[in-house]
Amino acid sequence: MMNLIDDLRRLVGDRATDSSSERLCYSRDASQVRGLPDYVVRPLNAIEVSEIVRLAGRLGVPVTPRGAGTGLAGGAVPIKGGILLDLSGMDRMLELDLDDLQVQIEPGVIPERLNWALKEHGFFFPPDPGSSAMCTIGGMIANNASGMRCVKYGTTRDHVLDLEVVMADGRVIHTGSRMLKSSAGYDLTRLMVGSEGTLGIITAARLRITPLPRARRLIAASFPTAEAGARAVIEAFSAGIVPSACEILDRTTLMVLSKCNPNLALPMDGDLILFEVDGSEQSTAEEAEQIERACSAAISVRIATGKEEMEEIWAARRLVGAAVSRLDPNLSRVYLGEDVGVPISQIPTLIARVERIAEEAGIPAMKYGHIGDGNLHAALFIDITDEDRWGALERAADRIHLAALDLGGTVSAEHGIGLARARYMERQWGEGLDLMRSIKRAIDPQGILNPGKLGL
Amino acid sequence: MMNLIDDLRRLVGDRATDSSSERLCYSRDASQVRGLPDYVVRPLNAIEVSEIVRLAGRLGVPVTPRGAGTGLAGGAVPIKGGILLDLSGMDRMLELDLDDLQVQIEPGVIPERLNWALKEHGFFFPPDPGSSAMCTIGGMIANNASGMRCVKYGTTRDHVLDLEVVMADGRVIHTGSRMLKSSAGYDLTRLMVGSEGTLGIITAARLRITPLPRARRLIAASFPTAEAGARAVIEAFSAGIVPSACEILDRTTLMVLSKCNPNLALPMDGDLILFEVDGSEQSTAEEAEQIERACSAAISVRIATGKEEMEEIWAARRLVGAAVSRLDPNLSRVYLGEDVGVPISQIPTLIARVERIAEEAGIPAMKYGHIGDGNLHAALFIDITDEDRWGALERAADRIHLAALDLGGTVSAEHGIGLARARYMERQWGEGLDLMRSIKRAIDPQGILNPGKLGL
Repeated sequence: MMNLIDDLRRLVGDRATDSSSERLCYSRDASQVRGLPDYVVRPLNAIEVSEIVRLAGRLGVPVTPRGAGTGLAGGAVPIKGGILLDLSGMDRMLELDLDDLQVQIEPGVIPERLNWALKEHGFFFPPDPGSSAMCTIGGMIANNASGMRCVKYGTTRDHVLDLEVVMADGRVIHTGSRMLKSSAGYDLTRLMVGSEGTLGIITAARLRITPLPRARRLIAASFPTAEAGARAVIEAFSAGIVPSACEILDRTTLMVLSKCNPNLALPMDGDLILFEVDGSEQSTAEEAEQIERACSAAISVRIATGKEEMEEIWAARRLVGAAVSRLDPNLSRVYLGEDVGVPISQIPTLIARVERIAEEAGIPAMKYGHIGDGNLHAALFIDITDEDRWGALERAADRIHLAALDLGGTVSAEHGIGLARARYMERQWGEGLDLMRSIKRAIDPQGILNPGKLGL
Repeated sequence: MMNLIDDLRRLVGDRATDSSSERLCYSRDASQVRGLPDYVVRPLNAIEVSEIVRLAGRLGVPVTPRGAGTGLAGGAVPIKGGILLDLSGMDRMLELDLDDLQVQIEPGVIPERLNWALKEHGFFFPPDPGSSAMCTIGGMIANNASGMRCVKYGTTRDHVLDLEVVMADGRVIHTGSRMLKSSAGYDLTRLMVGSEGTLGIITAARLRITPLPRARRLIAASFPTAEAGARAVIEAFSAGIVPSACEILDRTTLMVLSKCNPNLALPMDGDLILFEVDGSEQSTAEEAEQIERACSAAISVRIATGKEEMEEIWAARRLVGAAVSRLDPNLSRVYLGEDVGVPISQIPTLIARVERIAEEAGIPAMKYGHIGDGNLHAALFIDITDEDRWGALERAADRIHLAALDLGGTVSAEHGIGLARARYMERQWGEGLDLMRSIKRAIDPQGILNPGKLGL
């Protein structure tokens, strides 16, 4: 292994390094997981990736792909050392094919940049994680990211037509085609989406794009209980509404937000549901009215149509992640137990359980998230310099994960498993996990691709 | 093997048989593929399926699952003999969970029956293959079926949340959950969808359901050329319209239809595009107007809003499959080369090539299909008692498949590969097929599940 760095340099020049400072920079993502790579390499094309992976395969050295490092589960952290592949430099937009409703890009493209480019043509790429100004589309695919709009438009998985993937043996394959639909063999594309770099390294992606809606409307409805809010969501769905966003901010979240900014444009008198509908002027007006009717149990309902007014409310919604640190400088948000999901009907029960768990642990908890697809973000915050509090938080997060599974849900709805949630895979999947392990062994027999992740 | 029938009878009583007449009944589907099973078994639950598969595994006997036998590629034909599993008797609707927008059913449920049951609650299961009054949902899943409405609602794949599957070793696993979204490991559900019974036997399915739209409008636009029609489709998409159906009937198809029924409610003066939009009264009215504008190159545009008027036009569209046999009693439609797909922009080129191929072969060809997702059904018809004509047809179908691949398309957009199209898999997928083979070997190492299919 002594000369692996020399071999890597022969392949990519000074885009390969083993300097300690560089390695340290790549030893973490946005989660608590840590792991130092032995080498950092920044390939610029599929051929380089292929050569690096072949080299790693010959020596049995782990390869961990990484986009922007915004992950919340340690997915891109090289916990077994080896080679860290920084793919953020592969950021070309390769093809814009509007007639066929698709684009081809390299994995390092940031979604907001793609959306700027698409906007002038009247299209967009719908998945919108909170990190869309900084994450990479490669990371979104590896993770099956989603966000607010997936309640209408689906997750990243639903927008990928084809991937160019470097396999563990260095071969470069395509998983799909330019076709919007096909019935010709196994769905390799969707097997790769969400596999978190354990089955192959994505070097290009063909994405389906969607026409931008012409109008939006936002309905902010405040409810006496989260349960009443959830009931209104179900009623709106049953009435045939497919909102383009359907968010919940519980009263604790609102309280924290109002302390950060007392002039917030949000009703503060209960648990808040934000519905957004998009389409034409007329259809959104009609749907907003229907939603108002579905919210008969609300304390107050406000319909926003002005662009600025809506932007103000969404800006407040986006504040949530950052709000905590402004509440008390001694408290930090820890991303554990933060991404559970349950069937929609179970959201009120889940919120009640999270409340009890947090209370018993003496940890403040904001509950917010994408209620329209059952995804609850529980934000727990503690003094992270206090070891006791860490222990309490870990136990609380564990109980939140188990509560979600108990309600027929998932330990991660959109942030991924990585290392942070790997130990729940057996419990969530039962023998399904054996099947995943068989697939992993078949496709990466040496286990060099992102080892230690997904509980495989 | 002598006593396999006795063993099968011990498991399921007289629902296992080796009578020649029964075996013959199960030796075909709706394609030209033929293969006689050695045994026919009609299991009624997952435990029975599991026991049968275990027994087959011990003896290395093939197991081929079958729904209603409406497949067009031989997917359910037991070409290597062994056990034919008739799953049509497993047809219970297990759970209707409207709040969580889902149902759980057994694989033998016929989609039209499910939709009757859902209709009274205001919901539907969108995938709508032409055979939806007789096929099974298990078959639709195995095949990733779709139909007219998938241009808006997606294929079967997009509506499956969880499958109960009996694996090759007899284990019963779940591939998903009740969650509408999840990011927790490999997407086993979508790996199973479209795998045509080669990876496991589906014994239950949890499906996402969709609220029924309140209104529909149909726009029938007649164009001087198929190219002008395709251009209008692209323009409508770019204007932000997502039609709930977008069909093409070329002038040959219209000619055949008009000979069957001279009073047809369709414009007969060119190549016809049928757009349907659904939603509210207002939004469909708005969108119909926009589509009309996108059809500026049309010879004529007619907007239908009355339920009867629309039903009349769709009835004519549905006639297409059957029309041929009424044109000339000596000609039969042969399902070869009938399901190719290309990127939308390539549809005019594909139509022109199919025309030339058919002309050169001296075979009449109707070209119709789901232009909105690039899926063209080429209907070739010959005197099937004439061996020469068979040869000419097979060569023409081969050229159609190769033309689709040449245009960046697929040999099957919704009917599946089965045996009929297995030989194109290598050409369509390249090394991707090796990956499918690795997965098949890992999950069914003995190769007992539906052997000989998908070119694996």
